[in-house]
Amino acid sequence: MPETINITHKKLEKFLTELFAITGMNAEDSSWCAEAMVKTNLWGVDSHGVLRAPDYLKRLTSRAINPTPKIETVRGGGALETMTGDDGMGYVVGKAAMNRAIELAEKYNISAVGVTNSNHFGAAGLYAQMAAERDMIGMVMTNVIPNVVAPGGSRPITGNNPLAVAVPTFGDIPFVFDISLSNVAGGKLLLASKKGEKIPFDWATDKDGRPTDDPDKGFEGFLLPVGGHKGLGLSYVIDILSGLITGGVFQFGIKSMYKHPNDPSLTGHFMIVINPLILMSRDEMQTRMAEFRETIKTSPMWDDSREMMQPGEIEHKTQQERIKNGIPISAQLYEDLVALGTKMGVSENI
Amino acid sequence: MPETINITHKKLEKFLTELFAITGMNAEDSSWCAEAMVKTNLWGVDSHGVLRAPDYLKRLTSRAINPTPKIETVRGGGALETMTGDDGMGYVVGKAAMNRAIELAEKYNISAVGVTNSNHFGAAGLYAQMAAERDMIGMVMTNVIPNVVAPGGSRPITGNNPLAVAVPTFGDIPFVFDISLSNVAGGKLLLASKKGEKIPFDWATDKDGRPTDDPDKGFEGFLLPVGGHKGLGLSYVIDILSGLITGGVFQFGIKSMYKHPNDPSLTGHFMIVINPLILMSRDEMQTRMAEFRETIKTSPMWDDSREMMQPGEIEHKTQQERIKNGIPISAQLYEDLVALGTKMGVSENI
Repeated sequence: MPETINITHKKLEKFLTELFAITGMNAEDSSWCAEAMVKTNLWGVDSHGVLRAPDYLKRLTSRAINPTPKIETVRGGGALETMTGDDGMGYVVGKAAMNRAIELAEKYNISAVGVTNSNHFGAAGLYAQMAAERDMIGMVMTNVIPNVVAPGGSRPITGNNPLAVAVPTFGDIPFVFDISLSNVAGGKLLLASKKGEKIPFDWATDKDGRPTDDPDKGFEGFLLPVGGHKGLGLSYVIDILSGLITGGVFQFGIKSMYKHPNDPSLTGHFMIVINPLILMSRDEMQTRMAEFRETIKTSPMWDDSREMMQPGEIEHKTQQERIKNGIPISAQLYEDLVALGTKMGVSENI
Repeated sequence: MPETINITHKKLEKFLTELFAITGMNAEDSSWCAEAMVKTNLWGVDSHGVLRAPDYLKRLTSRAINPTPKIETVRGGGALETMTGDDGMGYVVGKAAMNRAIELAEKYNISAVGVTNSNHFGAAGLYAQMAAERDMIGMVMTNVIPNVVAPGGSRPITGNNPLAVAVPTFGDIPFVFDISLSNVAGGKLLLASKKGEKIPFDWATDKDGRPTDDPDKGFEGFLLPVGGHKGLGLSYVIDILSGLITGGVFQFGIKSMYKHPNDPSLTGHFMIVINPLILMSRDEMQTRMAEFRETIKTSPMWDDSREMMQPGEIEHKTQQERIKNGIPISAQLYEDLVALGTKMGVSENI
């Protein structure tokens, strides 16, 4: 059996849509969840996307995640609102919140929507890009369970809370910035361990919080924030916006979907939408974004092996390649999905 | 002569107010500039504040900075506007933009104000805190001249664009997060050089853009972004918000106040203000921010020499100490200020 199997995105999307529908989600929501996860894989962000589908499906089946949430505004006024996600799928809640934020930004030119009682929503860039597709700037953040330790601390104090910003380019290449606030993701520690390499001391700590250059000790321990106090403080800000001012939970109030598979995660998201076309014409914005990109692309390099990219460019390239050649899925994940398909009774397995 | 001279903040503020007034600024503006710079020193952020006063005064005298700007809204609608700073002092422009953003947030609960044709505005935290003092969350960013090189690049491509966020705590200790997006400031390279220490390879590059562990080569070269592509991308976002969508300049359009002392810098700022009290009562917010802080403060440490702080806490402590004991000014800066006072004809020298 090969290490990876390539599956066309359409086949994968159809399969996942059916799986989500079987859990009781309506047609629109199950189709969106499948589309969003497959899109994440098309971007090459394989740490999210389809890899997480088996866990989501388990949580939907056990009703830790509510397949038919009533997502509605509960607080706020003017251009700022908070909604409850009613323990729904993070993808569905995230989409509803972004749609509401876009609606408010159409009226007020800037808006923010916070949402409580959500769950893991995948790549933050998905929602930021929804705004860009509507000619607006989307800023999306979410809190996650504390997994980042402060320098000197012996247990995690905050999450590697992601932040994504998408800007409409009115051109071929989207601008989508999407990061999390640990210096690296856990996957990089695994990779270094496999290669037998040491890791820089600012990547991770051992289980007592002490910096380590041993990737295995780092994997038992905690992640360090990007830029020390810089990433740490920004992570606090994201938690405050996503969980504290929304009336949701923050810091240790969030529940890990892995440690508490049968409980709602109570995750909070926060989305800001800005309408740049009240400030300039579409043509002017397009020209300026093209200039911005041109300056980046033509910047001289001493390292010819590298290419300057605007945020989102590499994902765009990967998407084009994978639409053509299919999405590589690990043999293990493929088997898990096939087994799930059989168990849940899909009409046509993957 | 001692290395540093301690001056009371009141004396320093009075002296600077008079100097700025002599350049033609009105009473309100000159008093605000002095207050803001002295406040920055009270926080212990000595890289900004009074250190920069001689340069600002030179630029005001030469009219590179307009001492009597007409700052007004030029584009936008609803809760989003852009203003022109009319080449005024960054401090005056920043304050006007933040005041307008607060006014809009009072009406819409979230607002954003961008501003073009400004100049160096000092610490971004000054403006973020203006919002917090009005019970609102302030997010403040600004673009600066490209001084950060992308990994692999041989010349700077973006600025270490600062970002500050202040959240009202309704308690004794403010929450003010204020960073710039280079891994470290240039001052840290100087310090390492003085101590004869090597620097980590992710701090700076030599003049060709190649990573170096030699602080002297780093000082001749460029700064690296915090977290590699993470800080780099966020810096792009800040430039787009501050300069691109506002109709101002971005990337290499900004002029360094040091390389072009006689030209306006054309700096852009962007401020977002959020009114959390439409989402919850003041009491609830106060309780939640106190809980947030308590979790940070009681987090266990393996390194007893360190203390967990909320962003802005160390500045708050320094402020209390310096209000009592005065602000330490280097002998060199003291001499420069005295000479300026004499030259510009203040009624009472420092």
